[in-house]
Amino acid sequence: MKMFYFLFLSSLLFSYCSAADFCVGDIKSALTPSGYPCKPAAKVTVDDFVFSGLGVAGNTTNIISAAVTPGFVEQFPGLNGLGISLARLDIASGGVIPMHTHPGANEVLVVLSGTICAGFVSSSANKVYLKTLTKGQSMIFPQGLLHFQLNAAKSSAVALVSFSDPEPGLQITDFAFFANDLPTDLVAKTTFLDAKTIKTLKSVLGGTN
Amino acid sequence: MKMFYFLFLSSLLFSYCSAADFCVGDIKSALTPSGYPCKPAAKVTVDDFVFSGLGVAGNTTNIISAAVTPGFVEQFPGLNGLGISLARLDIASGGVIPMHTHPGANEVLVVLSGTICAGFVSSSANKVYLKTLTKGQSMIFPQGLLHFQLNAAKSSAVALVSFSDPEPGLQITDFAFFANDLPTDLVAKTTFLDAKTIKTLKSVLGGTN
Amino acid sequence: MKMFYFLFLSSLLFSYCSAADFCVGDIKSALTPSGYPCKPAAKVTVDDFVFSGLGVAGNTTNIISAAVTPGFVEQFPGLNGLGISLARLDIASGGVIPMHTHPGANEVLVVLSGTICAGFVSSSANKVYLKTLTKGQSMIFPQGLLHFQLNAAKSSAVALVSFSDPEPGLQITDFAFFANDLPTDLVAKTTFLDAKTIKTLKSVLGGTN
Amino acid sequence: MKMFYFLFLSSLLFSYCSAADFCVGDIKSALTPSGYPCKPAAKVTVDDFVFSGLGVAGNTTNIISAAVTPGFVEQFPGLNGLGISLARLDIASGGVIPMHTHPGANEVLVVLSGTICAGFVSSSANKVYLKTLTKGQSMIFPQGLLHFQLNAAKSSAVALVSFSDPEPGLQITDFAFFANDLPTDLVAKTTFLDAKTIKTLKSVLGGTN
Amino acid sequence: MKMFYFLFLSSLLFSYCSAADFCVGDIKSALTPSGYPCKPAAKVTVDDFVFSGLGVAGNTTNIISAAVTPGFVEQFPGLNGLGISLARLDIASGGVIPMHTHPGANEVLVVLSGTICAGFVSSSANKVYLKTLTKGQSMIFPQGLLHFQLNAAKSSAVALVSFSDPEPGLQITDFAFFANDLPTDLVAKTTFLDAKTIKTLKSVLGGTN
Amino acid sequence: MKMFYFLFLSSLLFSYCSAADFCVGDIKSALTPSGYPCKPAAKVTVDDFVFSGLGVAGNTTNIISAAVTPGFVEQFPGLNGLGISLARLDIASGGVIPMHTHPGANEVLVVLSGTICAGFVSSSANKVYLKTLTKGQSMIFPQGLLHFQLNAAKSSAVALVSFSDPEPGLQITDFAFFANDLPTDLVAKTTFLDAKTIKTLKSVLGGTN
Repeated sequence: MKMFYFLFLSSLLFSYCSAADFCVGDIKSALTPSGYPCKPAAKVTVDDFVFSGLGVAGNTTNIISAAVTPGFVEQFPGLNGLGISLARLDIASGGVIPMHTHPGANEVLVVLSGTICAGFVSSSANKVYLKTLTKGQSMIFPQGLLHFQLNAAKSSAVALVSFSDPEPGLQITDFAFFANDLPTDLVAKTTFLDAKTIKTLKSVLGGTN
Repeated sequence: MKMFYFLFLSSLLFSYCSAADFCVGDIKSALTPSGYPCKPAAKVTVDDFVFSGLGVAGNTTNIISAAVTPGFVEQFPGLNGLGISLARLDIASGGVIPMHTHPGANEVLVVLSGTICAGFVSSSANKVYLKTLTKGQSMIFPQGLLHFQLNAAKSSAVALVSFSDPEPGLQITDFAFFANDLPTDLVAKTTFLDAKTIKTLKSVLGGTN
Repeated sequence: MKMFYFLFLSSLLFSYCSAADFCVGDIKSALTPSGYPCKPAAKVTVDDFVFSGLGVAGNTTNIISAAVTPGFVEQFPGLNGLGISLARLDIASGGVIPMHTHPGANEVLVVLSGTICAGFVSSSANKVYLKTLTKGQSMIFPQGLLHFQLNAAKSSAVALVSFSDPEPGLQITDFAFFANDLPTDLVAKTTFLDAKTIKTLKSVLGGTN
Repeated sequence: MKMFYFLFLSSLLFSYCSAADFCVGDIKSALTPSGYPCKPAAKVTVDDFVFSGLGVAGNTTNIISAAVTPGFVEQFPGLNGLGISLARLDIASGGVIPMHTHPGANEVLVVLSGTICAGFVSSSANKVYLKTLTKGQSMIFPQGLLHFQLNAAKSSAVALVSFSDPEPGLQITDFAFFANDLPTDLVAKTTFLDAKTIKTLKSVLGGTN
Repeated sequence: MKMFYFLFLSSLLFSYCSAADFCVGDIKSALTPSGYPCKPAAKVTVDDFVFSGLGVAGNTTNIISAAVTPGFVEQFPGLNGLGISLARLDIASGGVIPMHTHPGANEVLVVLSGTICAGFVSSSANKVYLKTLTKGQSMIFPQGLLHFQLNAAKSSAVALVSFSDPEPGLQITDFAFFANDLPTDLVAKTTFLDAKTIKTLKSVLGGTN
Repeated sequence: MKMFYFLFLSSLLFSYCSAADFCVGDIKSALTPSGYPCKPAAKVTVDDFVFSGLGVAGNTTNIISAAVTPGFVEQFPGLNGLGISLARLDIASGGVIPMHTHPGANEVLVVLSGTICAGFVSSSANKVYLKTLTKGQSMIFPQGLLHFQLNAAKSSAVALVSFSDPEPGLQITDFAFFANDLPTDLVAKTTFLDAKTIKTLKSVLGGTN
C-alpha cells in the first residue's frame, strides 16, 4: 500500500515533462541558427540515436582514390544541437583528401587502419604542421584552417573523424576555385594562378567561365 | 511646437522594432536547441513575466515526505532563452529529495525555513561535499553531479533553488534504475546490485522486467 | 575521360548538402532565442548579403539634430545568427545621441567625418570614460552601459558603429522614463526627479500619466 | 581478494583527474573573459560552495529605505564560471530600489515576504511591464532593461533575486548620471534635464562638475 | 625584383600575429572556466596536435573486464578550448562499463570491433533507449544522462567515443555512492538501498563510514 | 544632512565592486580560450577603449596594390572578450585582397569610398556570391568561407570591415600553399596544381621545398 502510494505520488511530484535531454532534428523543418527544430519527444525512438553509415567503406574508385562518408546532422539527426558530429575517411593507396577547411568546426582524426600523412597550415604565420600517422594515432585540425590527408603507403587507410559541431561544413579549395562559374579572370586576379592552369582545372572539375 | 517636432521625429528616427529584449516561449510550438520560438511581441503582457507557482507549498504527504515545485520554461514561459529557472523544495521532517542530477544546469539552493542537510559528489575523485544548511544559507550543486537534500530536523523545511538554464532536467537515480522496463539483469550487470534488491525497488517504483 | 570520372564521382563523394554556411533570416517567421529561422538555401541570392541602407545620410532636421540608421537583422536579414550588426550615425553640429544603452551587444564606433565627443559610464564605480574623437578614431562602448555621442564642433559628423549581435537593442533613457504611460509618481519615486520635470519631459516625448 | 583487485584496478582505469566539475574562483588572480582562474581542486572544500550572506537582513535605515545584498562571484567564489548568482533585497515600507539595469544578466525575483511593486521598460517600444507582487510570486527582468522595485505597503518586504551570470553588474541610472564627474552641461545635453535639477542631484549623490 | 617586393611588403601588410588559431593547453597553469591558458605559439609543434594513447588497448584483466582510455585535455592538451575530446573503450567478453554520466559533454560512440549492448535513460520520463550495436554503428548518449555499455558477446569489443567538450567528466554511479566516505545512513536515505547492500558495495569499492 | 546620509549609505549598499563591465586585455599575459586576462580595473583609462589605427591609410605601393590595417585584440586590447573587431582595407585601382578566409569570425564590409568587387564561395555547393559594391554598401562574408575583394575601378577604394570576434584570423590561400616549407609534391598532390606553377609561386612568396 505504501509502495503504491509512493509510486502514485512520485509520478505526480516529479512529472514535469521536459524535452531538454536531447533535440532530435526534424530536418524537414526550417533550420535555425542553433539547429533544426526538435522532433516531438513522443516520436523519438532509440533508432534516432543510432547511425550505421560509418560502417560501410566509401567507394574509392575515383581519381582521388578516397571517399568521405559524413555522419553530420542531415545524415544523423540525433546529433542536432549536441555540438558534435562524425565522418569516415577511406583513402586507398596513393589517395588524397585534397586541401580543404571546415568553416564550422574543429576536427580530430583517428587512424583506424593504414597510414595517413596529414597536415594543416596556421593562419597567422602560414606554418605547416605535418605528421605521418599510424593506426591508433589522433591528430587535431583546428577550425577553418587549411588541411589535407593523404595515403602514401601501399595499403589503404581508414580514419574516423570527429567534429565539434553537427554541421562542420567542408570547403575544398579546388572546388571553390574551379568547380563553379567564378570567371577565370577573377580567379586569376585573386589567386595569382595563370589563366591556362585555371581553365584546365575548371574543365576537370566542371567549372565554367 | 518644437516639442511636438521632437516627438514626431524621434519616433521616426528610433522606430526600428526589435523583439530581442526577451523571447517569451510559445510552448505549443516545436522546441529548438536554443529554446521555444518566441510569442509575438504584440501579444506579450506583464503576466508572461510573472509566475505564482512557487508561492504554494508542495504536498509532502508521500513516502519521501518532500515535494519539488518547478518553475521551468514549461511552467514559466517567460524564462525561455534567458538562461535561468527556479524551483521550490518542501521537505517535511524526515523527508528527502533522493540522489539525482540536473543534466542541463548548475543549481544554487537557498534555505528559506528549517534546516537541510545537502551534499554532492564530484565526478573525478568521488569526493563528498556535505553541509547542514540553516535558514539563509546557500549551496551550489554543479551541473550533472549527483546530489541530494534531506531534512533531519523536527520541523519542515523550505528552499528556493535557481538553475542556470530554463530546462535543467532532473534525473533521479532510483527512478532511472528502477522505474522503467530496463531488464533486471541489465540493471544488475551495470550497477552491481543484486537481482532481489532490484526487483524490490522496481516493484516500489513501478518498474517492470 | 578521367576528368569526367573525377567530376562525376567527386560530386557524389562530397555531395552532402549543408545549410550551415549561413542562415539568412526568414524575418516573417517566429523568432527563436538564437535568431530567425533560415530562408531556404535555394532561395538565397547575393542580395541577401548586401545592404545599401548605410549609404544614405539620416535626416538630422530634428531637435536632437541627429539620426541613427540601423543595419540590424530586421533591416539586413543576412546578419541573422552571425553575431554582428551595424548602424550609421549622423550628427549635425550641436546634435546629440542621448544617453542610452544597448542591452544586447557591445559596440565599436568609428568616426567617418567630423568630430564626436563620446562617453560611457561604468556600472560598478560610475566612472566616466570620455573622449573627443576625430576622423578615423574608434571607441568601444561595452554592452549594457550608459553612453552618449554628441557633436560639439561646427561641422556635421558621421560615424559607423558595429555591434556584437544582430539585434543589439537600443534603450534611450529619456524615452524609457518619459515616453510611455509609467505614472509620474513611479518615475519620481524611482528616479528622484521632481514631478514637474517629469511632466515636462513626458509632454515633450509623448508620455502620459 | 577479488574485491581488492576491483578497487585497485578501478582506481587505475578511471583515475584521470579532472577539474572540470567546477571552478571555484581564485578571486585574487586576474579575471579572464570567462571568469576567474580556478582554485586548485585539492584546496576546495565544501565551504567554497556555501554562502551565508543572504541570511542577514540588509540595513534599510537610509533614504531609499532599501538594501541590496549581493551573492555574486566576488562574495561567493564558488559561482565562478557557473552562469548564475543571487542577491537579497530588503525594502522597508516606502522604500525603493531605484531605476537600474544589470548589463550582464537576466534576473528573476521571488518575493519572500511583503509586497513589491516592480516594473521594467522594453527597449524597442518603451513599453512598461508593471506588477504588484505578493509573497511567493516571481517576476522576470530581462538583461540590460531599466527596472525598479518599490514597496508601497505598510510592512517591509524581502525578495530573493537570481541572475543568469556570476557577475550581473548593476548600473543605477541616477548614480551613472549624477554620482561622478560627468560635467553638468554634458548631462544636460544628453538627458534633457535642466542644469539646476542636475546640480541638485549631483550634490545629493556626491557628483562634481 | 617585383617578386622580392611582393614578398617583402606582403610580410609587412599581413604580419599581424595572432594566436587565435588554436590554444594548446598549458596544463601546469591554473585552469579557467574556458580551459587552460595557451602554451606560447612559438613553442607549439605538430606533436601538440598528435596523440598516440588511443592506439593501445586498455587492460581489461579486472572484474569489470573493461577499460576506458581517455584522450581528454589533460592527456591531449591540444584539445584545449576546442570543444571536443575522445576516449577508447575496451570491453572483454562479459565486460561492462557500469552506469555512469558525463556531466560536461554529449557523447557519440562508434563500435570498432565486436558487439556492444548500450543504453541510456531519459531524465524526464525515465525512458530506456537500448540497442545492440555492431561494428561500424554509432550511438549518441546525451549530456548528463545515465548510460552504460556492455559486451554480451563471446569476443572482445573496442569502441571509440567522442565528446563535445575537452573535459567531459565521468561520474560512475556506484563509485559516487559507495567509493567514498558518504555515511551509510545517508546513502540509505537517499537511494532507498538497504544498509547491508550499501556496506557490501562500500567494501568492494573502498568506501568507508 | 539627509543628503550626506544618502551618499554615505548608498556607497555602502551598492559598493560591490565588479570588473565585469569589460575586460581590457593584458596582452603580455598568456592567452586563454576566452581571450586575454583582464588588465586591473584600476589601471584602465579611456584610452584603452580608443584606437586610432584605422584613421591612417595603408600603404598600397606593393604588387597587390592593397593593404589591410587590423584593429584586432592585439592592436586594440579593449576589444578583448567583447566578440567584435575591426579592420581597414585600402585598395588602389587594380588592387586586390587575394582569396582568403577568416577562420574565427563572420565579416561585414562597408565601402567608405570607391568601388569594390567582392565575392565569396559557399562550402556545400561551391556557389559564388558576387557583387560590385559602391560607397555606403555593406556585404557579409560568413565565417571560414573563401572570399576576396578587388578594385576594378580607376580610383582607389577604402572599406571598413567588422568581425564577430576579437581575433578573426586571416588565412590567405596563396600564402598557406606557397609561402612556407610545405614540400612541392605535397602541394601538388593536395591542390592538383603542377609542380612548375607551385615552384613559381613559392619563389614569389618566399616558400621553400
